Amino acid sequence: MNVNAYAAKGPKGKLESYTYELGELGPEQVDIKVYYCGVCHSDLSMINNDWGISQYPLVPGHEIVGEVVATGSAVKNVSLGDKVGLGWFAASCMSCQECMGGKHHLCANNEATIVGRHGGFADYVRGHWSWAIPLPDGIDMSKAGPLLCGGITVFNPIILSEVRPTDKVGVIGIGGLGHMALKFLKHWGCEVYAFSSNPDKKAQILEMGAHRVIDSTSSEALESIAGKLNFILNTTNVPLDWNSYLTTLAPQGKLHTVGAVLEPMPIPAFTLIGGEKSVGGSPLGSPALNRTMLEFCVRHDIYPTTEEFPMHQVNEAMEHLEAGKARFRIVLKNS
Amino acid sequence: MNVNAYAAKGPKGKLESYTYELGELGPEQVDIKVYYCGVCHSDLSMINNDWGISQYPLVPGHEIVGEVVATGSAVKNVSLGDKVGLGWFAASCMSCQECMGGKHHLCANNEATIVGRHGGFADYVRGHWSWAIPLPDGIDMSKAGPLLCGGITVFNPIILSEVRPTDKVGVIGIGGLGHMALKFLKHWGCEVYAFSSNPDKKAQILEMGAHRVIDSTSSEALESIAGKLNFILNTTNVPLDWNSYLTTLAPQGKLHTVGAVLEPMPIPAFTLIGGEKSVGGSPLGSPALNRTMLEFCVRHDIYPTTEEFPMHQVNEAMEHLEAGKARFRIVLKNS
Repeated sequence: MNVNAYAAKGPKGKLESYTYELGELGPEQVDIKVYYCGVCHSDLSMINNDWGISQYPLVPGHEIVGEVVATGSAVKNVSLGDKVGLGWFAASCMSCQECMGGKHHLCANNEATIVGRHGGFADYVRGHWSWAIPLPDGIDMSKAGPLLCGGITVFNPIILSEVRPTDKVGVIGIGGLGHMALKFLKHWGCEVYAFSSNPDKKAQILEMGAHRVIDSTSSEALESIAGKLNFILNTTNVPLDWNSYLTTLAPQGKLHTVGAVLEPMPIPAFTLIGGEKSVGGSPLGSPALNRTMLEFCVRHDIYPTTEEFPMHQVNEAMEHLEAGKARFRIVLKNS
Repeated sequence: MNVNAYAAKGPKGKLESYTYELGELGPEQVDIKVYYCGVCHSDLSMINNDWGISQYPLVPGHEIVGEVVATGSAVKNVSLGDKVGLGWFAASCMSCQECMGGKHHLCANNEATIVGRHGGFADYVRGHWSWAIPLPDGIDMSKAGPLLCGGITVFNPIILSEVRPTDKVGVIGIGGLGHMALKFLKHWGCEVYAFSSNPDKKAQILEMGAHRVIDSTSSEALESIAGKLNFILNTTNVPLDWNSYLTTLAPQGKLHTVGAVLEPMPIPAFTLIGGEKSVGGSPLGSPALNRTMLEFCVRHDIYPTTEEFPMHQVNEAMEHLEAGKARFRIVLKNS
């Protein structure tokens, strides 16, 4: 089958029309007709080869919503015609300790959808059945794509850190990931604090479910909530005043980062010890947790706040993202 | 009542005989006749005013085993004649969120036994009934003292980190605290790795329950167990190559420090995120957990490896500790 896609031909290149042949379908693989594909900052990082792992031509796109149009002979769980989502991962080994333990997202031999293979800025995409997550009835497919990458990235920490509805929680950075975290945590029942450096976003942030917006550029503002929070989720990838954030944590509070800041985080042992605090991190989430998350989203009508572009305007969409103008997640729609 | 004690009169001073008057017993207080008192590195830090919180004359000693000889009118749980232990803390407020939540060791208004009050290098010591931990029948009182500070400090992380008998675990630094951690973890059922820089200790470390001793000065040795451990407990207070230790952790592994290294720990976010790892810390443990720990110790015959000095040779004992010669914990005995 020929796939019509948009690809970067080299680092920092514009996306150009690109056609490739999918080849023979493996027994455990499915082909998905792409309806929608979210645009994630990682697409930009991959186009630019920021992580040194990009291969060109590179077809970005890993927040995919579509329909199963072909299934290999050994495919389980999904069938022709099923509506599914496909996120950052497209395959796992299915047999290692992590996969067998239900933690496929930690499999050392995972295939990422756009690393060494082609993603969802296209009319079709291929993946292993395990990562083709069935969409629950009633889901809004036009907004579901970003849940499969950005969404699960901020949902998983809530589970891992055992956040409870009675907790006071904070989210650092209210962008593509952070705004979804606010919505999840509001519906989790928590008292939600948003740390933002952008006063222009305040009204929208409150509307999305935050109870308070804290100016993250003000050390006084941080001090005013010392000892209050049980959980903080960092979604930014810039160096922060980590000790100040740790100080806003209550005893046994947890700081969790999904933002991959490059510089090591200087964490004071005294602060951890004195308050039984911890610092953790995580990537994405398992297929099982993706299913659970989507059910939770449908039950509570949780979706990213999106801006829709037609797929053929993919370069305009990328420029909009790169300029920091996305409010809050871009979704590309195939016609 | 007059108390005969040993006190430092100023920073880094030798300990000298010192008598003080205990004053009126408060309604919630108990007086304890000291049978034994362990010697902790924190006693040395307090004598030397390393933390800037010492008040002189300073009577060290916070690993106390003895007998209740006086009880205030509102004392609960312990009675005259009961054998009890008293550790780093001598009193909590009993009403804050932490105390009411069973986490008295995190009470912001805790009284530490040797901070602004006098400790157990003495014939008597006073404390709040809540921190006078009843000793279970059959306990070896001559060795139980160090469990109340060093012991609970390494026992609490095992509980907090939810270490399981099926886990592979590591202990960094096999001294006063680390050797007790080895014994706990062996009896927890774990596969135990000891990280030590001192080859002279190897035979003793294996005897105490470690399955393998890893040379902590060798980066090759650390690399040889990459991805293996579920839990690492750091008991040292020196800067370490944290990322190398994080790399020895399996996915979802936890690094926990009770060693209060002064320099911030440079923790790479990528390592935390990629493997869902975390870094935490904790101080001591609650009265309830002290009781649980002592029961566990009696059931499994777990005690620190001790060297006994008579109380009047307290200066010799401190010199032995300061010279790094203690194998592995010193206990002072009152005659």
